Amino acid sequence: MRDKTFLMIPGPTPVPESALIEMAKHPMAHRSKEFSNILKEVYEDLKYVFQTKNDVYLFTASGTGAMCAALENLINEGDKVLCLSIGNFGARWAKIAASRGAVVTKVEVEAGKVITPEMLEEALNKDKDIKIVTLTHSETSTGAANDVKTLCSIIKKHGAVSVVDGITSLCAMEFKTDEWNIDVAISGSQKGFMIAPGLSFLTASEDAFKMHEKCKYPSFYFNWTEHKKSLAKDTTPFTPAVSLITSLHTSLKMIKEEGIENVNKRHKKLSLALRAAVRTIGLKLLVEDDNNASHAITSILPPEGISVPDIRKTLKEDYDIIVANGQGNLENKIFRIGSLGFVCERDLIMAMGALEASLLKLGYKFELGSGVKKLIEELNK
Amino acid sequence: MRDKTFLMIPGPTPVPESALIEMAKHPMAHRSKEFSNILKEVYEDLKYVFQTKNDVYLFTASGTGAMCAALENLINEGDKVLCLSIGNFGARWAKIAASRGAVVTKVEVEAGKVITPEMLEEALNKDKDIKIVTLTHSETSTGAANDVKTLCSIIKKHGAVSVVDGITSLCAMEFKTDEWNIDVAISGSQKGFMIAPGLSFLTASEDAFKMHEKCKYPSFYFNWTEHKKSLAKDTTPFTPAVSLITSLHTSLKMIKEEGIENVNKRHKKLSLALRAAVRTIGLKLLVEDDNNASHAITSILPPEGISVPDIRKTLKEDYDIIVANGQGNLENKIFRIGSLGFVCERDLIMAMGALEASLLKLGYKFELGSGVKKLIEELNK
Repeated sequence: MRDKTFLMIPGPTPVPESALIEMAKHPMAHRSKEFSNILKEVYEDLKYVFQTKNDVYLFTASGTGAMCAALENLINEGDKVLCLSIGNFGARWAKIAASRGAVVTKVEVEAGKVITPEMLEEALNKDKDIKIVTLTHSETSTGAANDVKTLCSIIKKHGAVSVVDGITSLCAMEFKTDEWNIDVAISGSQKGFMIAPGLSFLTASEDAFKMHEKCKYPSFYFNWTEHKKSLAKDTTPFTPAVSLITSLHTSLKMIKEEGIENVNKRHKKLSLALRAAVRTIGLKLLVEDDNNASHAITSILPPEGISVPDIRKTLKEDYDIIVANGQGNLENKIFRIGSLGFVCERDLIMAMGALEASLLKLGYKFELGSGVKKLIEELNK
Repeated sequence: MRDKTFLMIPGPTPVPESALIEMAKHPMAHRSKEFSNILKEVYEDLKYVFQTKNDVYLFTASGTGAMCAALENLINEGDKVLCLSIGNFGARWAKIAASRGAVVTKVEVEAGKVITPEMLEEALNKDKDIKIVTLTHSETSTGAANDVKTLCSIIKKHGAVSVVDGITSLCAMEFKTDEWNIDVAISGSQKGFMIAPGLSFLTASEDAFKMHEKCKYPSFYFNWTEHKKSLAKDTTPFTPAVSLITSLHTSLKMIKEEGIENVNKRHKKLSLALRAAVRTIGLKLLVEDDNNASHAITSILPPEGISVPDIRKTLKEDYDIIVANGQGNLENKIFRIGSLGFVCERDLIMAMGALEASLLKLGYKFELGSGVKKLIEELNK
């Protein structure tokens, strides 16, 4: 049905009506007092979401822009960077680091697995010159999630700077920038922040800023120092995407009203209930251990004899729900259901029901209704 | 009055209703067939506006992002770059070039003046190793416009690569990328393209691509090669600002419907009529010669004894019109009226009338109505 499409991909995610309406207003003058007042609140509310006392900078860019903003303010040619990769987005850190002339060491795991503290310790002990360690919190390509708290405490102990991709994890999972010793954290707008794509965010610790000061050719567009100066004056260095910012202003108020802890809990509950329901109908999860699972995205293996494209097609054509395919090597091996941002229990009941209905049509043998039953039981716990 | 604000700054500019409405829709899945179809048309229509047979890449970024996208795909440390600067945005090219380790030579002129062919020839003859020459078409900070056609033909003759800021000039002024031998041209969404800020555009010639291939550390986020690959598949390398793109899709259709030559002519007519009207009420223009004037933005000196802040305040508070102050050294010395994008004769009549009304209130002695009269006469010619 026209206009019925519901996105359950790991971004873009559904946007609340009040945040959508902001987008349809005439753009504000980006240097006006009115817009500065909005920016001031946005900057403040971003600190609340990132749980940091440091500034959070705002870029008119995709999440990958913020990834570049992280490394392009730190790396000098020849610097040693350790990239902990648990999927495509972890591998992207390595590409960005290499694009600035860094000497990159990669620690990789099988799809669906995470980095253990031992792997990290070993890599850091092997090369004492490692300056920067990149990692992913919630890996969008697999649905696995690293234990950022433990990993970043190890990185801090070794005196390196940690750079964490929180693109799909912010809001969806507990994320304590300062308490967890995260030096650089980034995220994007079209995920837990509940607005359209086009904005991304970055916060940097004092240690990260010290390294930034020694960066010979820091990024011009994403320059931390320039963003810091502008932020202090409630503005941005360049004309920002004002419509997305007024939209974000609205969604951040919603997040504050619900409370970030409650937002985190909602995502965890939805995600774990979905996982239990999927298992109940006999499907396998790429990330087997609930403790290693992202609360933003669930990667599911199709049943024997039924293809991922058929499941996605049925969900789309018969039920107007878009779920994601796997990426790269995982294409057609898994499908991914996003349950992040403006998503409630009702949405998950719908998605699980539609998944059951689709599988029934595709000839899968299972107890129809058992997934939804399990989901509701888990949600009601 | 609430919701009455009308922007007459050099961007953001007013957005047509049909393009605004697109922004309020739920974001589309950026890897869907539906979105690819839209992107394909957008890419095609951008070529029409840039008047080039080459690809036009689309970045989720401010106009300054596209400036970085230009130089960060070309420059290697130590490269010689000539920056022709007629104001703040010309000077920004020099800063970006320096941020990548280029050896920068700057040719500057007094505010309101432009670069002559002789100045350019002299600079190029002085140093045969100059690889890149940056210039601004319509300089937003002064309202002066360079003769890009002549300057770029000289640059081509000398074998250097030209990089042209068309941020406020695309749509507002004649701009023929291929015919004028422009190697790299960039622009932004919130100007002549009539949508909100957040997108920017770049096209690069074969010569520019040859230089790009020798760039040791090209930008990752703005990488031309990656954008070229994605464009060929009707997609983008990273999650783009989908809402801004669907909005752009609509505004580009409007531009095509009007015809780019007619859009250019409309801007020229409005701008020259405004200049004549402003002179009629005895005010001075920063750019004296009509031939050197941008058709996007008009910089006006306040009359003796009346301050720029008072004029801007009266226009804003009594007539809900926002005009821009001068930037940097020109702050409080000029005010700038934008007449670009979704602007018609009616808007200019309103602006000129409101300017007269404001000056009357502020005690300026002149023949009330004479500016509007002159404006209408010029528009009717």
